[in-house]
Amino acid sequence: MRYPKNRVAYLNENYLKLQAGYLFPEVARRVREFCEANPKAAERLIRCGIGDVTEPLPRAAVEAMKQAVEELGHAETFRGYGPEQGYEFLRSAIAQHDYRDHNIEIADEEIFISDGSKCDCGYLLDILGDQNMVAVPDPVYPVYVDTNVMAGHSGLARKDGSYEGIVYLPCTAENNFVPDPPREHVDLVYLCFPNNPTGAVATRAQLSRWVDYAHRHEALILFDAAYEAYINDDPHLNPLSAPPGRDPGEADAKRQVRVESKIPHSIFEVPGARECAIELRSFSKNGGFTGVRCGFTVMPKSIFAQTENGRRLPLHPLWQRRWSTKSNSVSYPVQRSAESLYSPEGRKQVRVLIDHYMGNAKLLRAAAVDAGLEAFGGVNAPYIWVKTLDGVTSWQMFDRMLRELNVVITPGSGFGAQGEGYFRISAFNSRENAEEVARRLRDLQ
Amino acid sequence: MRYPKNRVAYLNENYLKLQAGYLFPEVARRVREFCEANPKAAERLIRCGIGDVTEPLPRAAVEAMKQAVEELGHAETFRGYGPEQGYEFLRSAIAQHDYRDHNIEIADEEIFISDGSKCDCGYLLDILGDQNMVAVPDPVYPVYVDTNVMAGHSGLARKDGSYEGIVYLPCTAENNFVPDPPREHVDLVYLCFPNNPTGAVATRAQLSRWVDYAHRHEALILFDAAYEAYINDDPHLNPLSAPPGRDPGEADAKRQVRVESKIPHSIFEVPGARECAIELRSFSKNGGFTGVRCGFTVMPKSIFAQTENGRRLPLHPLWQRRWSTKSNSVSYPVQRSAESLYSPEGRKQVRVLIDHYMGNAKLLRAAAVDAGLEAFGGVNAPYIWVKTLDGVTSWQMFDRMLRELNVVITPGSGFGAQGEGYFRISAFNSRENAEEVARRLRDLQ
Repeated sequence: MRYPKNRVAYLNENYLKLQAGYLFPEVARRVREFCEANPKAAERLIRCGIGDVTEPLPRAAVEAMKQAVEELGHAETFRGYGPEQGYEFLRSAIAQHDYRDHNIEIADEEIFISDGSKCDCGYLLDILGDQNMVAVPDPVYPVYVDTNVMAGHSGLARKDGSYEGIVYLPCTAENNFVPDPPREHVDLVYLCFPNNPTGAVATRAQLSRWVDYAHRHEALILFDAAYEAYINDDPHLNPLSAPPGRDPGEADAKRQVRVESKIPHSIFEVPGARECAIELRSFSKNGGFTGVRCGFTVMPKSIFAQTENGRRLPLHPLWQRRWSTKSNSVSYPVQRSAESLYSPEGRKQVRVLIDHYMGNAKLLRAAAVDAGLEAFGGVNAPYIWVKTLDGVTSWQMFDRMLRELNVVITPGSGFGAQGEGYFRISAFNSRENAEEVARRLRDLQ
Repeated sequence: MRYPKNRVAYLNENYLKLQAGYLFPEVARRVREFCEANPKAAERLIRCGIGDVTEPLPRAAVEAMKQAVEELGHAETFRGYGPEQGYEFLRSAIAQHDYRDHNIEIADEEIFISDGSKCDCGYLLDILGDQNMVAVPDPVYPVYVDTNVMAGHSGLARKDGSYEGIVYLPCTAENNFVPDPPREHVDLVYLCFPNNPTGAVATRAQLSRWVDYAHRHEALILFDAAYEAYINDDPHLNPLSAPPGRDPGEADAKRQVRVESKIPHSIFEVPGARECAIELRSFSKNGGFTGVRCGFTVMPKSIFAQTENGRRLPLHPLWQRRWSTKSNSVSYPVQRSAESLYSPEGRKQVRVLIDHYMGNAKLLRAAAVDAGLEAFGGVNAPYIWVKTLDGVTSWQMFDRMLRELNVVITPGSGFGAQGEGYFRISAFNSRENAEEVARRLRDLQ
């Protein structure tokens, strides 16, 4: 049978604006070519590129998941479709332990369980209007940008990889990689602290300026707290968290648990955030769930958005409806596994994981400094953001590290124009590998 | 701190077009009220409403998932992020067993693993243009319609619950609940066989007419085959699959495995479908995965769509990109569990589940007929579509079944205007419950 081939349905043309050369495939290609040409060096290759965990799942998570699967194998305990927004047992564990225990008022029904923060970034755009002007940090986790491009919220790509119609907020050594709010008006702002890729954290004062901006500029903050577990709450170990000569004031007094730290774990520690911020969190980097898939959003009932003609409506019912209509939530055993991370054993085991990765970060950061490189991050985040040697580009540094040290890092320019001249070392590795990379780094000079 | 409350970001106004009264919440409300008013009757209540499986997971699926979770608990076998489109082991098991074993040419990389067909319905609209004219059957699985409304592909809702700007294809007793292609032009057509809610199946000849239409009208078919496992391939048991006086011709000769049946399990059994159809499948209704969450789409590389100015491009790279950018695929243990359904034991255990539910369907359909009701479906699908008594509406029948028999069914009008005067009985139940419902049905007259 022969059919005419010239008439077809329409596609979403916004996809055609996307840059072909996504960062990680290009990294993979260069590594593959190097390894094929240098089989001996390939044997000692160590990967500190992609931000993927390496250590096994906490035992509590394994046992909880196995038990839940066994429940599904028996008639008396079988469960089919669960609530589309997630099981109450998990929503309430999250709201209690991550928020209410820290004096942050978040209701169970403000927690929405998802299959990960990457997914949530896309899902959230579903309920927002196409008229919104979007701002992202630079360098940035590429998913914030690409999902907006796909949704038609940008113009075409420029030569440097940035897109017209999106506001970029430069994160540089000068501002400690924490951007100030822009002078212009934007409707949606993406913030991520502790930051991927720079490892920077924002103080309470810095986040307060953003909340102020959001209120003044009718903006919505999408706050990605995927790495909050890496915030170092010990004021003796973390110089940033010892407020220099500042008394913990009245506003802080209520927050007994974290009064010693001025680095908020949640945007909702900042007064006024419940009216302008949505928080994204994940079990990927605390419980090691990158392959298990579970995260959540916090959508306060006090967040409003408007229609074209100015009608103000709460976003919560739209988000609720999105989940009811488009999803059947996350696998029951996965939700039970996530719940177990809040048990006393689960919390201890997560702590061991974090301490392991942060031990790596300390080693790697020290080695970079010893090698004469300027290093940022790695104190409250599993990423070290390192300045290349003078006049060396990110990709040149990538090639040199690959060739001379047989170590894979991520070129900073892949995260945005402001990342040029930097590279990212990931602390997600075995201790053995981290120690070996530290040794090799010291040989760099 | 006080902020002005009148300025906020924009929301997606298409959500405001959605009908408030979604079917299943209304069913739940009436059941709850009845049970509160009639605690004695509540005790003997049997639910045949929502299409959710009731029997435990196949043992193979339980064991495979437990083993995979244990792998994640050990350093040597730990896995983090998997391929965004799904693991090769599962994509290849699906392509081989569901397609190539039946002489349907589908490549592994044309299979995309997802967290269920409900989700895929929404995801697919991501890559399609907003200019497309959409057609859906009536009655219909509400998700096809609502996801299009949310994406802005419809006008406002009418009084009968239908939406302006969407083409409805009446499925009635006169056309055996299989609509013919419309005379007008549409770009996207949703088809679901075996059908939810009517239980109808489409013959090869009927699907061929749709493929012809799609080619003539530049249309794309979204074929939902979530219930394909329920197609009764035994020509002795299924009168529809014994072709009356028709010799299995040349076209069928190649398809040795299913030559005896004229009911295709896949749209891709129809020549030409690779150029115009995307298939959705799920493990929910064969492996009982409604709470485990796994499904997939088949996106042939030969499907093209066009830009506004007529440039023809394959959809496969857009779909690939959607998954890379917006997802990290499905939980590794869930993918291993799905894979196990293709093992010899897994297949046997799935067969037992299907036979169980279809045994229920046979009982329920016979009882409805004995009660003097006209019944459709229930032969190749786990749903029986029953005509109400003369002049009785779907909701009146719902109330009567609830009050007199203490049985929950789903009112047909909830699936669309053409569902008025029908109700759906789900065969997803224990045998004991199905037998009891059959007994009570016979008391109806």
